[in-house]
Amino acid sequence: MSEVTAIDPADWVCPLPLRETKRIVMGHGGGGILSEELIENLFLPAFGAGGPSRDSAVLTVPAGRIAVSTDSYVVQPLFFPGGNIGDLAVNGTINDLAMSGAQPLGLTAGFILEEGLELELLGRIAQSMGKAADHAGVGIVTGDTKVVGRGSADQLFVNTAGVGVIPDGVDIGPERVRPGDDVIVSGNVGEHGVAIMSVRTGIDFGTVVTTDSAPLHGLVAAMLAADEGGHHIHALRDPTRGGLVASVVEIARAAGVGISLQESVIPVPDAVASACSFLGLDPLQVANEGKLVAFVDPAATEAVLAAMHAHPEGARAVVIGRVVPEHPGMAVGRTPFGTTRVIERELGEQLPRIC
Amino acid sequence: MSEVTAIDPADWVCPLPLRETKRIVMGHGGGGILSEELIENLFLPAFGAGGPSRDSAVLTVPAGRIAVSTDSYVVQPLFFPGGNIGDLAVNGTINDLAMSGAQPLGLTAGFILEEGLELELLGRIAQSMGKAADHAGVGIVTGDTKVVGRGSADQLFVNTAGVGVIPDGVDIGPERVRPGDDVIVSGNVGEHGVAIMSVRTGIDFGTVVTTDSAPLHGLVAAMLAADEGGHHIHALRDPTRGGLVASVVEIARAAGVGISLQESVIPVPDAVASACSFLGLDPLQVANEGKLVAFVDPAATEAVLAAMHAHPEGARAVVIGRVVPEHPGMAVGRTPFGTTRVIERELGEQLPRIC
Repeated sequence: MSEVTAIDPADWVCPLPLRETKRIVMGHGGGGILSEELIENLFLPAFGAGGPSRDSAVLTVPAGRIAVSTDSYVVQPLFFPGGNIGDLAVNGTINDLAMSGAQPLGLTAGFILEEGLELELLGRIAQSMGKAADHAGVGIVTGDTKVVGRGSADQLFVNTAGVGVIPDGVDIGPERVRPGDDVIVSGNVGEHGVAIMSVRTGIDFGTVVTTDSAPLHGLVAAMLAADEGGHHIHALRDPTRGGLVASVVEIARAAGVGISLQESVIPVPDAVASACSFLGLDPLQVANEGKLVAFVDPAATEAVLAAMHAHPEGARAVVIGRVVPEHPGMAVGRTPFGTTRVIERELGEQLPRIC
Repeated sequence: MSEVTAIDPADWVCPLPLRETKRIVMGHGGGGILSEELIENLFLPAFGAGGPSRDSAVLTVPAGRIAVSTDSYVVQPLFFPGGNIGDLAVNGTINDLAMSGAQPLGLTAGFILEEGLELELLGRIAQSMGKAADHAGVGIVTGDTKVVGRGSADQLFVNTAGVGVIPDGVDIGPERVRPGDDVIVSGNVGEHGVAIMSVRTGIDFGTVVTTDSAPLHGLVAAMLAADEGGHHIHALRDPTRGGLVASVVEIARAAGVGISLQESVIPVPDAVASACSFLGLDPLQVANEGKLVAFVDPAATEAVLAAMHAHPEGARAVVIGRVVPEHPGMAVGRTPFGTTRVIERELGEQLPRIC
């Protein structure tokens, strides 16, 4: 079961044999002494001073609206260029909250660990989570750990749920999208998916593509500030699984509008384009983890774009299309060759376990 | 991959081959059309009218304190006497919130599904979640679904996170526990763990023991009302993994007090006692999923106990011990034979994957 290795005196904790392990054992999920040790020696130091409480955490909120979100992460491999499952999980849930205009208040972390997982690996992932949360200015406030036997999970799954505060007056949702709105993307698309695929396939695409994983609540706050409460930012989406295409089709369907994209202006880095061409993928359907798509009344587009350009996560923001009254529920792209095509989502997925 | 069976006309949805499947395929987790179908045809109907929104849900809160909690569920088997992983996940997170005195406001549901899982099984579990949430008066407000390949998970894991509102003036926490406090348990202990073990071992213990899985926020509200803002309810714990013992030792350690239990008055049903005796388990260390332990100033014990007895989840509530200044950080039990023993938590766990 557990791999018992020779003890380095520096690692010595306790004479009980199980504590000598460098790996997760079933007992780490049992709610007993080993569980407590895992929390106190691994998770709490990694998550920092505002680390998680035992069963539930208490947060103080102003009267008004909160956003609540959850995402489970099953990405393989656990580590990839530019990040790992831990910071991905933190940024991903922050971004789900940010897409309703919320500023994140606290995150939860729920782990499902496979027996035999190296503690050192778990420690590095937990530290990444702590750093990402710290960078975003949000605490990991409570958590949970379960362990399943070898072969009953694939190393490590993590769920992050989050709570955020929606500032008074912010009103963002697909039902507000209307014909005439500009469609803005905050930067290059396709990087996260290609970063994962490059490790998974072992193919050298010449340039290393790193994940774009990043928290977007700061960018959203800057955009809302630039709009000065004008309610011109109608909807926001983070194009993760299914990529840009899934986000725009989802909005077209939810708002009952058509969307027309100018494909030639959508920023796809050369390395992403060539990797996608090699792998037979459409970069517009590849997952992003640090980008947003905004649907904005053209009266505010200039101000919102300027604010995006002034923010590191929006420096390459660009208008890629427009909401139209034609073909409701559908997105249509003008290709670089001047033709048009219907942009349709995948039935399933191009890339499994991308997040 | 997917098992394509003959189509019953009543099940007919769409001519695309994948939709004929009765099982989860990788694409159900891809964020595309199959994901949407799973949400719209399975999760939304199961979770009811207040079903989950796409990325995040918006809830309205009064100014003040909210409790936030998360729990992942990996119980095997998925179905057991009296419940399944779905209602367990709903009640469990409600109870984590209730232990800080919070009334639940909304739950999230994050699924990790193994490719090949029967849709009918998932549907039954989702329906149980919807029913349990409805029974508790709380909505499942947002969710997430990931799919991993065959052999990368064990059927289905579910994470529930929750948000609850802590009423003004409620002040519950282990740091408030002090010598003299009565220790109250709300009813029979050991039922959940034995219910699981009876199915897992296939041993017939004569009587079927069913899980005690139940939401406890109503009981907690009744107890708080009986205390009339007197702040006599110092701490609450739900004795899940590690059982009653883990809860009392945890409080003893957190509060720096001793706890003395009268073992003969702890309500252990005969069927639980005999199953535990057969399996070599200590019923005080077996998981419960619908019980609480309260640490109460004796000035309020009578009123709080009366309120518990008037509530279905607290009908068998009883004082089982007292907080003492001696042996801080430790719990000691007076056995039925008149001797005393130190009550210590398990290092790991008696029963893996009990919740």
